[in-house]
Amino acid sequence: MKERLILVSNDDGMHAPGLEALIETVKTFGKVLVVAPSEGQSGMSLAITIKVPLRIHKVRNESETNVIRYICSGTPVDCIKLAISRLAENKPDLIVSGINHGGNSSASIVYSGTMAAAMEGCINGIPSIGFSLLDISREADFSAVKEIAREIIEKVLAEPLPTGVCLNVNVPPVPLTGIHGIKICRQTKGFWIEEFDKRTDPNRKDYYWLTGLFRNLEPEASDTDEWALSNNYVSIVPVKIDLTSYETMDKIKNWETSMLVSLLKS
Amino acid sequence: MKERLILVSNDDGMHAPGLEALIETVKTFGKVLVVAPSEGQSGMSLAITIKVPLRIHKVRNESETNVIRYICSGTPVDCIKLAISRLAENKPDLIVSGINHGGNSSASIVYSGTMAAAMEGCINGIPSIGFSLLDISREADFSAVKEIAREIIEKVLAEPLPTGVCLNVNVPPVPLTGIHGIKICRQTKGFWIEEFDKRTDPNRKDYYWLTGLFRNLEPEASDTDEWALSNNYVSIVPVKIDLTSYETMDKIKNWETSMLVSLLKS
Repeated sequence: MKERLILVSNDDGMHAPGLEALIETVKTFGKVLVVAPSEGQSGMSLAITIKVPLRIHKVRNESETNVIRYICSGTPVDCIKLAISRLAENKPDLIVSGINHGGNSSASIVYSGTMAAAMEGCINGIPSIGFSLLDISREADFSAVKEIAREIIEKVLAEPLPTGVCLNVNVPPVPLTGIHGIKICRQTKGFWIEEFDKRTDPNRKDYYWLTGLFRNLEPEASDTDEWALSNNYVSIVPVKIDLTSYETMDKIKNWETSMLVSLLKS
Repeated sequence: MKERLILVSNDDGMHAPGLEALIETVKTFGKVLVVAPSEGQSGMSLAITIKVPLRIHKVRNESETNVIRYICSGTPVDCIKLAISRLAENKPDLIVSGINHGGNSSASIVYSGTMAAAMEGCINGIPSIGFSLLDISREADFSAVKEIAREIIEKVLAEPLPTGVCLNVNVPPVPLTGIHGIKICRQTKGFWIEEFDKRTDPNRKDYYWLTGLFRNLEPEASDTDEWALSNNYVSIVPVKIDLTSYETMDKIKNWETSMLVSLLKS
């Protein structure tokens, strides 16, 4: 039987401790291919690089067995695309992304480079999981997430996810003994209220730094990822790559006739 | 009654003819605020700019009434965030994005900067629509899209979309007389098979250009946006910002107990 191939990426770059934690976790499951950005790509969403060419660089490390690493100049999605089409010997059996230094719950999922890598894997028909720890520091303790990630990966390998669905896993910043359990959640309704820190440069020109405060639109709901995390549960949100609102399709179906008539009259 | 405020953005930048076509279309509906990127931002998805500060520049045009324009150094999502929090006098009543030079159907929606602007508007609770024409040329004929966009905007203003849902509108590259009608569609299942054009620079280092071929996984299905467009219908896909797969939540709910037990044992 062919050895399992696990593709690892992230958005914090090849030198992030969270990536090392994830590589250590998946090593026991098979051969590991790491394709990670050369520098931080947080907030890059599913951006692809089309205006400049991509560079890849193989990392030599004689002491590391069963792990192959490439640094890529592009975004997390570029890393996954390059890995699948150019760097992997065969189609990966699993894609894991992270472990992100910082949370990706609620609306943050759409901006996250970590989840973008997982979603790109899912679009390509590969079981994919994004992991994030709610601690942005470089010295974050990943020991609990590693245990949890191992469990979740075992589940996904044993019981495949439905086609077109990947997982968004967020872990509260507490030791394993402080975690109350796992919650299968839905994405919390919420958004970021941007403040934009306005400053003036030495040439007297204004510039703005993006800053913001998260506003939870349903703080009372107990089936959301925000609730789970603030109550020290691990949140797992199954994420669809089909963005269609089927309910709305039914609701506006009548536009097909009314608009056609109107356009013909014009 | 306060005049309606319409926010316009795109991913092709302030100087794109498609943006002008959209501004002309929405002018009749109220006051127009345009916040568009300084240069092309195709494929930027919902990326946000956090590593460098943002610059904005008001465009002076004495001859233009009821249209205010700003150029922004960032991504389409940055444009919407800045517009809402810093540049609009009050919350916009409608956000329109485009008209994109090129299609954004099927899986392309997740990479599209045009749809990212619409999705960002939707996250902020504002009715939002992205428009794309399946013609990437700068000289594309936007006359049919303008008619269609006007009709759709009228519908959305008269009959508000459900909360958390925006529209992805794609128009085939034919004159209005060649359009067979409007189809309310779902997002086609498909993905891009990346080829990556590998080249060698004058310093003998390899580099890669992202190229790819779209693979439609369900070419026979007639309720998809790909089908509509290839049969000269306008496709309208209602798009959700809640990415949760509720079906999968039910399916993996049992992990909550099995994983808890397992973690406690570890």
